[in-house]
Amino acid sequence: MASTDKPASPPKPEAPLPASKCPFNYSVVDVTLRVLLFAATVTSVVVMVSSKQTEVVPLPTMPTVRLPLPAKFSHSPALIYFVAALSVTGLYSIITTLASISVALTPAYSKSFLLVFAFLDVVFVGIVASATGAAGGVAYIGLKGNNHVGWNKICNAYDKFCRHVGSSVAVSLFAAILLVLLSMMSTFTLYKKIRD
Amino acid sequence: MASTDKPASPPKPEAPLPASKCPFNYSVVDVTLRVLLFAATVTSVVVMVSSKQTEVVPLPTMPTVRLPLPAKFSHSPALIYFVAALSVTGLYSIITTLASISVALTPAYSKSFLLVFAFLDVVFVGIVASATGAAGGVAYIGLKGNNHVGWNKICNAYDKFCRHVGSSVAVSLFAAILLVLLSMMSTFTLYKKIRD
Repeated sequence: MASTDKPASPPKPEAPLPASKCPFNYSVVDVTLRVLLFAATVTSVVVMVSSKQTEVVPLPTMPTVRLPLPAKFSHSPALIYFVAALSVTGLYSIITTLASISVALTPAYSKSFLLVFAFLDVVFVGIVASATGAAGGVAYIGLKGNNHVGWNKICNAYDKFCRHVGSSVAVSLFAAILLVLLSMMSTFTLYKKIRD
Repeated sequence: MASTDKPASPPKPEAPLPASKCPFNYSVVDVTLRVLLFAATVTSVVVMVSSKQTEVVPLPTMPTVRLPLPAKFSHSPALIYFVAALSVTGLYSIITTLASISVALTPAYSKSFLLVFAFLDVVFVGIVASATGAAGGVAYIGLKGNNHVGWNKICNAYDKFCRHVGSSVAVSLFAAILLVLLSMMSTFTLYKKIRD
């Protein structure tokens, strides 16, 4: 007779199911993208820092004299800014990955965190994009030179250096796109929460 | 003693007031910032395009020969990208200003428009920031040169050109900050709509 008592029990609340499913999906994708962002920024910084190359080239001031001269990222303020910006973004990606995991475990604060993520991600889109632009602009002069003002290309002599700089800029462009996606995702999740 | 009775009266429903006030304020600030963005991008493009300067300088390839040589933005791919990116952003600011005004008049679609604005603003943050970085990086070489690779500074000869480029980059930095604020505002208004 105890089994007949079961239908009298209150119906299961089915509404929270999709709502609780949504933040989980968001969190998984968010954490994945942030881990990817960390990997991209670390790769970019490591490739840029390890770009040093020494070659026997004519002195810029005296073209008749040939000496072993190094090319490294710290010779250009744009590339120094690039390394600094990508390093800070790497640190930011670690912090936000941990924050995103903690939000996944305690969804009560998820709306506030989504707002903070959307705000900060936009700022870092600006930082990473400007660093990519600055390094890309200088790298392009190194690759092609500029005849109008007499800036010689250096990539014919420093091939490894230029490969490293180019790869690093490409990876940082990927990092900027990841940040745009992360920011869009935070905003879209906020939007979905209104409609739910 | 009558003052002690006051707490017994029912509290005024103050909640709806900010809710109805919020979209109006958002629209006014949004339209203002977008008009400012338009002004900033147009200023930046006009100042950059009008930077042409012709001076009698030594030829880069033959330093003993002095000829009247022009310096203009179209000599540098980074500055061409800068003008293209800022022009597109100016067009974008016109379209979104009109869209923002139409949303203010018909608030029914405001949530969807906020989402679209937040998405597109982030993309344009990336575009304007990368253009600012590229132009800034090249302008810095023009200002200071780079002794390590023998790139001479040109701002001692082309003072007006460099002033124009520097001012243009500064105004585009302002435009990038405006876009960050616009994106944050769209996101924050979405967030507020959840809480209301």
